[in-house]
Amino acid sequence: MKIYDFKLAPNPRRVRIFLAEKGLTVPYEQVDIFARKNREAPFLAKNPFGTIPVLELDDGTCISESVAICRYFEEQHPEPPLFGRGAREKAEVEMWSRRIELIFSQAVRMIWAHGSPLTAKVVQQIPENVEPNRRSAAKFLEALDRALSDRPFIAGERFSIADIGAFCSIDFGKNSIAITPDPALASLARWYAAVAARPSASA
Amino acid sequence: MKIYDFKLAPNPRRVRIFLAEKGLTVPYEQVDIFARKNREAPFLAKNPFGTIPVLELDDGTCISESVAICRYFEEQHPEPPLFGRGAREKAEVEMWSRRIELIFSQAVRMIWAHGSPLTAKVVQQIPENVEPNRRSAAKFLEALDRALSDRPFIAGERFSIADIGAFCSIDFGKNSIAITPDPALASLARWYAAVAARPSASA
Repeated sequence: MKIYDFKLAPNPRRVRIFLAEKGLTVPYEQVDIFARKNREAPFLAKNPFGTIPVLELDDGTCISESVAICRYFEEQHPEPPLFGRGAREKAEVEMWSRRIELIFSQAVRMIWAHGSPLTAKVVQQIPENVEPNRRSAAKFLEALDRALSDRPFIAGERFSIADIGAFCSIDFGKNSIAITPDPALASLARWYAAVAARPSASA
Repeated sequence: MKIYDFKLAPNPRRVRIFLAEKGLTVPYEQVDIFARKNREAPFLAKNPFGTIPVLELDDGTCISESVAICRYFEEQHPEPPLFGRGAREKAEVEMWSRRIELIFSQAVRMIWAHGSPLTAKVVQQIPENVEPNRRSAAKFLEALDRALSDRPFIAGERFSIADIGAFCSIDFGKNSIAITPDPALASLARWYAAVAARPSASA
């Protein structure tokens, strides 16, 4: 078993944090996406969509998509539960994960794709996409702050993959496209500091 | 328990098909999103993001996001399994669901938001977004056709929520923004006909 990883990309970090929270160690192999190694035939045979990370099982099965890889490990190693426990909690984790993914992470991806000089060579940039997505990202962080005003973690009392997803997207937004959460969002700031202080955050 | 639904929107249809496949009946209440009832205070108290569908449990808990609602019912009524069975199958269903959602459904949403006369009044349209997303959607359907050449359903031998997600997005693309899958994609056409022939497709 191994995971194809790239330390500078945001999605593989979710898997590294998830595994650190589970106390699991899996060998990593770096795939240099800046050198477009993920677009060459050997990698495309593992994942025709060319995205990182990919989990390769011992029988050769390849699982791509960070959340799908996390789901695999959740099933094999249920403790601590990071996708929730019981129908209602699992549904709430999924609800928040999807809100984060489909609203915030999507806005971050759009700003990165259409606004970063680093993507200008590989994407047909439409600069008009940047501002509406900056507004959408800021509005989402306000909603997240309101949600966090009555609970320690995004989906409730327990740290979950929803926190990992939000934390990785917020960090990528901060470091790559200058999305800085408004410090007046006090509940968000308290949550961010708590997640950043977990040992898994450096994974 | 009830589900806030709107018959003309694509996301609630996923839940209706899912429940039909499970053989479950849940009362529905229609929320007219064309009249923006989902943006009024009573509905926003149930889902601050204003999206449809929403599952309201008897204790007042509200779960939004179609896949989160499906996850709730999968946990309560595991048979037949529509999110897969066992770690590897569950991971493969999640992998395909995410590819569909993050590539194809996302492209469909962009074409709808930026290209439909029906959304012109509520979205700041950027018409340059339409063509690249049409190409992305078409390319994804080619990849899906290749994947379906060696299996009956998207994630393997078993019908799953990945099939429901793809079917609903393809139908919405067909009916709303004239994305017609190339009939030369024979495996895709065979799969589509099989899914459309299931009794759940009319849910």
